[in-house]
Amino acid sequence: MSTKTATINILKTPTQQDWIEQAIGNIETILLDHSQCERKAAGVALNLMFRYPSSALLVRKLTAIAQEELEHFEQVNQWLDKKNIPLTSLSPPPYGKKLNSQIRPQEPDRLLDSLLVSALIEARSHERLGLLGTHCRDQELGKFYRSLMASEARHYGLYWTLADTYFERTLVQQRLEELSQVESDILSTLYPKPRIHS
Amino acid sequence: MSTKTATINILKTPTQQDWIEQAIGNIETILLDHSQCERKAAGVALNLMFRYPSSALLVRKLTAIAQEELEHFEQVNQWLDKKNIPLTSLSPPPYGKKLNSQIRPQEPDRLLDSLLVSALIEARSHERLGLLGTHCRDQELGKFYRSLMASEARHYGLYWTLADTYFERTLVQQRLEELSQVESDILSTLYPKPRIHS
Repeated sequence: MSTKTATINILKTPTQQDWIEQAIGNIETILLDHSQCERKAAGVALNLMFRYPSSALLVRKLTAIAQEELEHFEQVNQWLDKKNIPLTSLSPPPYGKKLNSQIRPQEPDRLLDSLLVSALIEARSHERLGLLGTHCRDQELGKFYRSLMASEARHYGLYWTLADTYFERTLVQQRLEELSQVESDILSTLYPKPRIHS
Repeated sequence: MSTKTATINILKTPTQQDWIEQAIGNIETILLDHSQCERKAAGVALNLMFRYPSSALLVRKLTAIAQEELEHFEQVNQWLDKKNIPLTSLSPPPYGKKLNSQIRPQEPDRLLDSLLVSALIEARSHERLGLLGTHCRDQELGKFYRSLMASEARHYGLYWTLADTYFERTLVQQRLEELSQVESDILSTLYPKPRIHS
């Protein structure tokens, strides 16, 4: 595994050079897509809170995640504003839909899979924001991306911890192994439009 | 109109004594329902942001509202924790469903009605949290309720301002008049279970 992903060792395959080139060459579209990712991430946390309203630990942790995602959403939108990029809607890449299709419909599988899919998305976001932080030509923007990395890593950790709280560790590890393979497989072919999860 | 609702003059009818008695006599259930109201309010703001992602002002204002509702959700949950009230799910009163049924499905009516329904719910919440702040037997809890009132009033104002930004004022006022009448009619018969919007 590449040293780039050394801190996010649940990702089976590190992001390849072609994504970096696509993203850096289309940084304004990436910024707009990133805004949508933060809004969606807040929505996912809130939906899980709605689905499991009596799980006190889950509710508390996800409230914190949702708050932080909204804060990042606001910060990314300030960048869009600064760069005069209007808030238009972008079609999402197939990544989220394909990953969500892995969530088994019956409880308690549904909870386990939902938490692990979110963990994987946060881990991949952490990795890719880090790559943007390193390769971005706009130094200020690069600094901003690097400042977000720690949160994404923390969010990954929170989702993993929740899974580990509500399920047996061997079960968590086994399912994470499967989902992590799917996640890398989805990204093995670069999506032709520039997106955070292309 | 009663002096109690002097600052929230869009409410057609002030809350009656029977709600106050029901709420004060069941303050723990009210606290639990209040937690759910804050979570739902955050969800409503987020859903509107998802529905109108390109309306920059709406997105900015609703991000702030969602953040504040999540903060209150957290604060109410801390009170539940302090009072050893577990986070169980309560059946909602018919208030929200009945009010939402007034939202016309076609745009731009849908946006106008959504904003005004939210404005009315915030205005009623402001009024009722104020009543809890005045009548609550637990002085600390009463203080907490009073501390939330200003935000609810601000949220009402924000939803109204958004309506006033995207629509002609005469249209806003006329529709608010209609919806405000419906809102008071829904509450004219006390819902038998203790809820914020019984």
